Amino acid sequence: MYDQLANFILGKTAIAEPDMQVVLSLFKPVEFSKNEILLDEGKTAKNFFFVVKGCLRLYSLQPNGSEATGYVVFENMFMAGLYGFITQEPTYERIQALEDTTLLCISRENFYYLLDQVPGWEKFYRSLLEFAYVVKSQRLFSFLALDATERYQLLLKENPQVAERLSNKMVANYLGISQEALSRLKGKLKST
Amino acid sequence: MYDQLANFILGKTAIAEPDMQVVLSLFKPVEFSKNEILLDEGKTAKNFFFVVKGCLRLYSLQPNGSEATGYVVFENMFMAGLYGFITQEPTYERIQALEDTTLLCISRENFYYLLDQVPGWEKFYRSLLEFAYVVKSQRLFSFLALDATERYQLLLKENPQVAERLSNKMVANYLGISQEALSRLKGKLKST
Repeated sequence: MYDQLANFILGKTAIAEPDMQVVLSLFKPVEFSKNEILLDEGKTAKNFFFVVKGCLRLYSLQPNGSEATGYVVFENMFMAGLYGFITQEPTYERIQALEDTTLLCISRENFYYLLDQVPGWEKFYRSLLEFAYVVKSQRLFSFLALDATERYQLLLKENPQVAERLSNKMVANYLGISQEALSRLKGKLKST
Repeated sequence: MYDQLANFILGKTAIAEPDMQVVLSLFKPVEFSKNEILLDEGKTAKNFFFVVKGCLRLYSLQPNGSEATGYVVFENMFMAGLYGFITQEPTYERIQALEDTTLLCISRENFYYLLDQVPGWEKFYRSLLEFAYVVKSQRLFSFLALDATERYQLLLKENPQVAERLSNKMVANYLGISQEALSRLKGKLKST
C-alpha cells in the first residue's frame, strides 16, 4: 500500500528517494468499517488521509437536520477536513467511511514537518490545495447554476464511481435531491 | 506602492532580498476606474492582482440573470479568478473594480516562473490558496447555515469595510438579499 501512496505523490511532484522514505514513514495504516465516523463535528481536524481501498465522504449537518455531502473520494485520493486542518478551529465538517476502508494517515504535525523539511512537499500540498479549491468551486457552481438533471450528468462524467458504487440514498444526497426525484431522473434519461 | 507589496509578502514568508527584487520586478502597476471589468466571463484568467488602493469584487452571473458576489477585497489583499487561474478553462468568474483602483499585476506565466525559481514563493502561494479555500468555505457555510441577520453580523465582524465603503445595493448583493430586506435588517438591529 505504500507503493500506491508513493506513486500518487510522484505523479504530482518529484521527491528524492531518501526524502520519500521519510515521507512514507510518517503515514500509518488505519482501517475503518462501513459507516464509521473519522472526524466528527466540533472536533479539530488533526489528520490527512490517503485512501488505499474504500471510500470516504466529507459532509456537514444542515440547520434543518439534513446532511449535505460536499465531497466523495475513492482509492488513490487524499481527503481531509481541510477547513479545520488549516484553521484548527473546531470543524463543522464530518468525514465518514462509506465502505470498509483502508487508509494511510498522517498527522497535521508531521504534515507540516514535511513542509519544512522535504523539498517538493510544498509543491505536493499546493497540488492538493488547488484541486480542493477547484472541486469546491465546481460543487458550489453546480448547485447555483445547474438543475438536478445537469448535476447528475456532470456526476456521471466527472466522478462516475459515486453513481456506480454508492447507494441510491447517497447518490441522491450528493445531488441534493430526494431518492424519488433521482429515480424519476434516471427513468427519464433511460427513455431518451 | 512596491513597499506595500513587499511588506505583505514578507508578512507571509521569508524571501531573500535579491529574490524579492526579482519578485517585485514582475509586478506591473495598472489602474481601473470604478465599475470597470478586469476579468469577464468566458475569458481565461491570466493575472493575479494585488490591491494597492481601491476595491475589487469577484462575482458570477446566475442563470436567472442576477449577480452573485463571491468575494470582496480592499487594500493589501490579493485577488484572482482563481478557478480559471488554476484550470485555465474559460472562467464563469468576473472581477470588477468597485472604486477607482490601483493594482500591481503579475501574469500567470511570471507567477509560475516564481514558483520554480524563488525559494519561499511556493510557501507564499500556499498561504494564498489556504486563505482562498477558507474564505470560500465560510461563504458557502454562511449561505447554508445562517439567516440574513446572522450573515450581516458576521460581515460586520469579518469584513466591516464591505458595509462601510460599499453601496447598500452591493452590501445587499453580498448578503444575497434585497435592498429592502437589508434596510429592515439594519433598522431591527439598531432598535435592539
